[in-house]
Amino acid sequence: MYQLIKKEGRARRGQLVTPHGTIQTPAFMNVATCGAIKGAVSALDLKRLKCQVQLCNTYHLHLRPGDEAVRKLGGLRKFTGWEGPVLTDSGGFQVFSLAKLRNITERGVTFASHIDGHKIFMGPEESMQIQSNLGSTIAMAFDECVKNPAEYDYAKESCERTIRWLFRSKAELDRLNGLPETLNRNQMLFGINQGSTYEDLRTDCMRRIRELDLDGYAIGGLAVGESADVMYHIIETVEPEMPENKPRYLMGVGMPANILEAVKRGVDLFDCVLPTRNARHGHAFTWDGCRNMFNSKYALDELPLDPQCGCPVCLNFSRAYIHHLFKSKEMLAMRLCVMHNIYFFNSMMEKIRDSLDRDNFSGFFEDNIQNISQRI
Amino acid sequence: MYQLIKKEGRARRGQLVTPHGTIQTPAFMNVATCGAIKGAVSALDLKRLKCQVQLCNTYHLHLRPGDEAVRKLGGLRKFTGWEGPVLTDSGGFQVFSLAKLRNITERGVTFASHIDGHKIFMGPEESMQIQSNLGSTIAMAFDECVKNPAEYDYAKESCERTIRWLFRSKAELDRLNGLPETLNRNQMLFGINQGSTYEDLRTDCMRRIRELDLDGYAIGGLAVGESADVMYHIIETVEPEMPENKPRYLMGVGMPANILEAVKRGVDLFDCVLPTRNARHGHAFTWDGCRNMFNSKYALDELPLDPQCGCPVCLNFSRAYIHHLFKSKEMLAMRLCVMHNIYFFNSMMEKIRDSLDRDNFSGFFEDNIQNISQRI
Repeated sequence: MYQLIKKEGRARRGQLVTPHGTIQTPAFMNVATCGAIKGAVSALDLKRLKCQVQLCNTYHLHLRPGDEAVRKLGGLRKFTGWEGPVLTDSGGFQVFSLAKLRNITERGVTFASHIDGHKIFMGPEESMQIQSNLGSTIAMAFDECVKNPAEYDYAKESCERTIRWLFRSKAELDRLNGLPETLNRNQMLFGINQGSTYEDLRTDCMRRIRELDLDGYAIGGLAVGESADVMYHIIETVEPEMPENKPRYLMGVGMPANILEAVKRGVDLFDCVLPTRNARHGHAFTWDGCRNMFNSKYALDELPLDPQCGCPVCLNFSRAYIHHLFKSKEMLAMRLCVMHNIYFFNSMMEKIRDSLDRDNFSGFFEDNIQNISQRI
Repeated sequence: MYQLIKKEGRARRGQLVTPHGTIQTPAFMNVATCGAIKGAVSALDLKRLKCQVQLCNTYHLHLRPGDEAVRKLGGLRKFTGWEGPVLTDSGGFQVFSLAKLRNITERGVTFASHIDGHKIFMGPEESMQIQSNLGSTIAMAFDECVKNPAEYDYAKESCERTIRWLFRSKAELDRLNGLPETLNRNQMLFGINQGSTYEDLRTDCMRRIRELDLDGYAIGGLAVGESADVMYHIIETVEPEMPENKPRYLMGVGMPANILEAVKRGVDLFDCVLPTRNARHGHAFTWDGCRNMFNSKYALDELPLDPQCGCPVCLNFSRAYIHHLFKSKEMLAMRLCVMHNIYFFNSMMEKIRDSLDRDNFSGFFEDNIQNISQRI
């Protein structure tokens, strides 16, 4: 389903054909945790923001409104009004980061809901059943995302279990895709590479999971507190072991500079709450760097957030107006800044793809890597 | 500037020609208190919601970002991105309802800002200067909105002062409109009828202020706690004294049924925070009545908020999705419900106008007066 169009160094220009549309890569996936982008942005808005893929969270949607409800309502795409591809995570990351009192066994994880504390069990089979009910385009295998730093022995043990969980995830999704009542019988499955910051665990894991010939492979367990250099080193370690004919997804990354550095190292897909979360705190990404819209220097500034930007916000509103909205605690402040940042990330990916098409990714990289993440 | 097109009983079909566009009446004015509709709705959205006039609050904008800043930024229309007519209130209502420690004299009112407590003075001249800086299409005269119930003697004294303030408002706006540096030298002025619930004060006030031949006349000091019957009675008392060739504006009203009843009694213009405020609490207006979207009966309901509605929300999203967004405290819940309610109010006014055009307002009234404000 993934077609590699061309390469420049390790950077890849490709496309991922899915039953719900083709994704041009490298691509950023926009995070709609509970089935909506935080900051009052709807699926209709996403269409105007160059979004290609919506990412939704299995853990949150299982708790509310419940995956059975989403299934009855026709799946996530119909429920949220987003007609393009949707990726659901496995729930693993949230189980390990949000839930309380978790107890992990070979079968899976028992944990208490962060909403009302009620006990829930989730293992690979449950995660696949939930994601099948959600009807996403791409399901993620159930994994454990270990904390950073992690002891070698724990990381190894966890990684082995995550590999066994991957085999069970695949078997269960194959079974579900074979059932006549399944919402999306062509649901794709991505496996997840783990192994903390240990090179041997990472490469061993990758060599074993690529044998499954899955629809794609993710690098998980990064951007969890390690330095950027360590993250880049792990990508460089794992990437040569990843099949060339499958998309590679770096989970939870990141700042614009992190994305440029990872594309350079052969990554195709990204997701992160950063553009939306930072926007809600008044931080607007631009090609000159990141602006804090609470800064009083914008009080009389008639320019748009980014004069180079073609988003619906920059075409219509001034920095002065957005500054005023943040100071006045108007919800519209968040919406405008979130829309701009989503457009910025998606159009940055478009510019990366254009530069690869023109065999000039390295020039694009050099022109932007300094400015793109600085605070101004 | 106001043209009366036809009448049915006392109900009026007309249009108000302004330098910033023509308003078909009866019309509802959408409230953007601080220069933005609460609930993450922008001026661009308003264009798709059948909005004809945006109303902004002088008191709030004077405090933040400051009317001098708005003036430097080209006035409210440029600042907010709304190209149509804008009405600004006088600040009087907020001075008397929001501000602390106010002290009222013949000159005006000294009060403490609700934001940081600093002392501000506002009289008719200051209100006109602020509204001139804001560059609105229609300015409102500075008045005192007395509490309900009010003692007769206080209501009379206040009403007399409000009339004297109206003369000063007019003189000051005439002066400002004559200055070459004024943003909108064609700024219109509406006078405000006061007099609490006392028939003689109301009629006497109206007879005296109509002599000024202003661009329009408002009935103020209603919808402040009196019963609907008292409100309708006061409208019936004042209306025969209002000039037929000027628009009549009932300030701060109201529920759909209140609007129908007031149109029937000869009112042309309305404003209220009710459609937006109620939406933010999950209340959606429909032609069958008002729905509470927190109600679990909507959890699996695939219908739109109102199957008869053509708004961007009803064309794209289900009750189940909106219910889920409210339960999940997603900001998008508020935005979608606010957009629907704004559209509902504006399209209700459109249907009222259509019924008047077809000489069937009384039929429209009878068909809808029961259902339109009930809770379902």
